[in-house]
Amino acid sequence: MNKIEHIGIAVSSLQESIPLFEALLNSPCYKTEEVESEKVKTAFFQNGPNKIELLESTDPDGVIAKYIAKKGEGLHHIAFDVTDIHAEMERLKAAGFVLLNEQPKQGADNKLVCFLHPKGTRGVLVELCQERKVEE
Amino acid sequence: MNKIEHIGIAVSSLQESIPLFEALLNSPCYKTEEVESEKVKTAFFQNGPNKIELLESTDPDGVIAKYIAKKGEGLHHIAFDVTDIHAEMERLKAAGFVLLNEQPKQGADNKLVCFLHPKGTRGVLVELCQERKVEE
Repeated sequence: MNKIEHIGIAVSSLQESIPLFEALLNSPCYKTEEVESEKVKTAFFQNGPNKIELLESTDPDGVIAKYIAKKGEGLHHIAFDVTDIHAEMERLKAAGFVLLNEQPKQGADNKLVCFLHPKGTRGVLVELCQERKVEE
Repeated sequence: MNKIEHIGIAVSSLQESIPLFEALLNSPCYKTEEVESEKVKTAFFQNGPNKIELLESTDPDGVIAKYIAKKGEGLHHIAFDVTDIHAEMERLKAAGFVLLNEQPKQGADNKLVCFLHPKGTRGVLVELCQERKVEE
């Protein structure tokens, strides 16, 4: 848990939200990326050592579409940068947290990721992120 | 907008949540503080350059109690570190964002703070934070 890698924000429209967050953060969107497995399009902004990730659903049955239908647009998840995702997953599992995937999976922005079940974290969806090494 | 200063998480009980977040973050709670004007008790954790702030309501009519009643526990706000809060407030107002307080006010953790209306930021409650100087 080295730092907050990014904060994920669920939005209904990247097209409308990108200029808004560029104005808010006073920083340009530096990348958009579709993650087909997660049924999302993402947009990234740098903020010092941290990032902001906007997420728009590409599918009415996707997790982001469902989240917005239930809770509205807004803060969706918090992602922590980790050095060794396997070791962190083991540590958290041993501490009683429930992992949503048993093996790290490919996330946006060239990361290996794992999510924790929000029922074990006071409603907070937590993501672990490890920068993917070139040889993997 | 230098970095994410902290992420605020609404919880129903600090007593239950502090050991949970100590285990999650692998880092001790370094401070608890009551902010009477906001009707909250807070607990802070360091995470590299960032912080996590847990918020428990001290009043059933407080904003955190109302938030939990409506949306449940979870991610509540994102706070950005700024160098000059007055200048940032002017910049954001000129860009069309709605400030929830016209003058910076005293927040937790020795900060001058200002909140932006979440209706203008896709449902995200945004806080600006400036470290309070000793002479103020």
